[in-house]
Amino acid sequence: MNDATPGPLIIIGGHEDKTGDRLILRAVAERLRGGRLVLATIASHQPDGYLESYRDAFAGLEVSDLVELYVDERGETHDKEKLSLLEGAAGVFFSGGDQLRIASQIGDTPIEQRIRAIHLAGGVVAGTSAGASAMSETMLVGGASSESHRIGDLRMAPGLGLMPNAIIDQHFAERGRIGRLLGAVAHNPRILGVGIDEDTAILVEGDRFSVLGSGAVYVVDAEDVTQSNIAEAKSASALSLHDVRLHVLAAGDGFDLAQRAPLGANRAEARAPFPKVDA
Amino acid sequence: MNDATPGPLIIIGGHEDKTGDRLILRAVAERLRGGRLVLATIASHQPDGYLESYRDAFAGLEVSDLVELYVDERGETHDKEKLSLLEGAAGVFFSGGDQLRIASQIGDTPIEQRIRAIHLAGGVVAGTSAGASAMSETMLVGGASSESHRIGDLRMAPGLGLMPNAIIDQHFAERGRIGRLLGAVAHNPRILGVGIDEDTAILVEGDRFSVLGSGAVYVVDAEDVTQSNIAEAKSASALSLHDVRLHVLAAGDGFDLAQRAPLGANRAEARAPFPKVDA
Repeated sequence: MNDATPGPLIIIGGHEDKTGDRLILRAVAERLRGGRLVLATIASHQPDGYLESYRDAFAGLEVSDLVELYVDERGETHDKEKLSLLEGAAGVFFSGGDQLRIASQIGDTPIEQRIRAIHLAGGVVAGTSAGASAMSETMLVGGASSESHRIGDLRMAPGLGLMPNAIIDQHFAERGRIGRLLGAVAHNPRILGVGIDEDTAILVEGDRFSVLGSGAVYVVDAEDVTQSNIAEAKSASALSLHDVRLHVLAAGDGFDLAQRAPLGANRAEARAPFPKVDA
Repeated sequence: MNDATPGPLIIIGGHEDKTGDRLILRAVAERLRGGRLVLATIASHQPDGYLESYRDAFAGLEVSDLVELYVDERGETHDKEKLSLLEGAAGVFFSGGDQLRIASQIGDTPIEQRIRAIHLAGGVVAGTSAGASAMSETMLVGGASSESHRIGDLRMAPGLGLMPNAIIDQHFAERGRIGRLLGAVAHNPRILGVGIDEDTAILVEGDRFSVLGSGAVYVVDAEDVTQSNIAEAKSASALSLHDVRLHVLAAGDGFDLAQRAPLGANRAEARAPFPKVDA
């Protein structure tokens, strides 16, 4: 596997369609090529019913072998039986719950190492809701929805980092989260903010991603921000952030993470008015 | 009054503080210089209690003369008693309800003409919630909150146009309205989108506005957009819009409407990386 390239990431904003066209789950299933999918329900405090729900959701999509990996306590991450579930798996799917459970339970453990190895060897890693947030390098853990960002009101923590240089937020339009994502990228504009709606996903392959599903994906790029009060204002102050670049992407659109530029029909020409000096 | 310049507009995102510091109502009161304020409750189907509520809210802020103007039917807009309320008034304050009631009841009537004359002669025109939306040239009447914009899902109508070249949205972060404002400006990027949070206002004087209150103001500028599906995609499709410029403004920030550029500490220098070819 020395010449393998990392596999795709499929990062879902929550509530992916499980009964209709199932476009997103279909995209996951197709990339398994018949191999085993490990449903990692680690984010949940109450994982009962998740396996059955996803068995039904994947029915007919040719996922022959769907198994559940749950970790209740960090000590279990050395458990041989649990590790064997990942042996030879074609993909891992992180379901929803609390992203802090994923990072705190499996961060820097043999389970995380195996998952990373699966990804590096070309396997799929998917995640929905909390499972999407956990893909981030620095992940959003808490922050107000449906209000503008307050300087002091954001909790971030180290994520799994499968998607470097990005911070993912989910249930994005549905929970009015643009404010907190703007707050997050204001802290360090190196990081791109990627807000994903429900029943919507990004399919990350190498330095690019494409958009799948019924909603939109918002890319918040603070690289060219000219003024911000993030480091100065009082903790209860509303965020001020001038000259943010925002891309709203729908199914069919793509994004070049290295160039920090959207992809789409005729994008090469369309980009012309925005020469990137540093790219 | 030939040499008069138009008075300020104070455009409020709803739920302005009425019991604490009352920063926004204070800003309205100060600009009346002791003159009469006409509370226009026209947006409401049930205006009972509004006058009492605002009498309490303005108590101690030196608004000597607060009177209510209600128009139940369009035929009443020629009523001499109602018109006399506006005679010599120093300002008009549009309260909340349905912006379509304001436009449809008083658009192109003697009442609207008097209000416009008050503004042109230097008087204050303020509006909160629906009263804010009605200031727009083309106003938002309906569109989903807390979801991404669908191409076909937006109702717009001609507003009072006191603030040209802008479309105002209110209760902005609280109701997750970035999607619909992006949808609105996608229709014609000439129009700036201005989303105002609750207990937050813009004070428009000439070509500039400044921000007051506890929340944020979002300026959505689609002038440099490079790709959009607004005219092409199916009505149920999610909006795609690449290269939007977004400014998040908090109290103390300002905005130059002619230059489409934020104002703030050292803005002249800070703008340097973004030369405007056409300005």
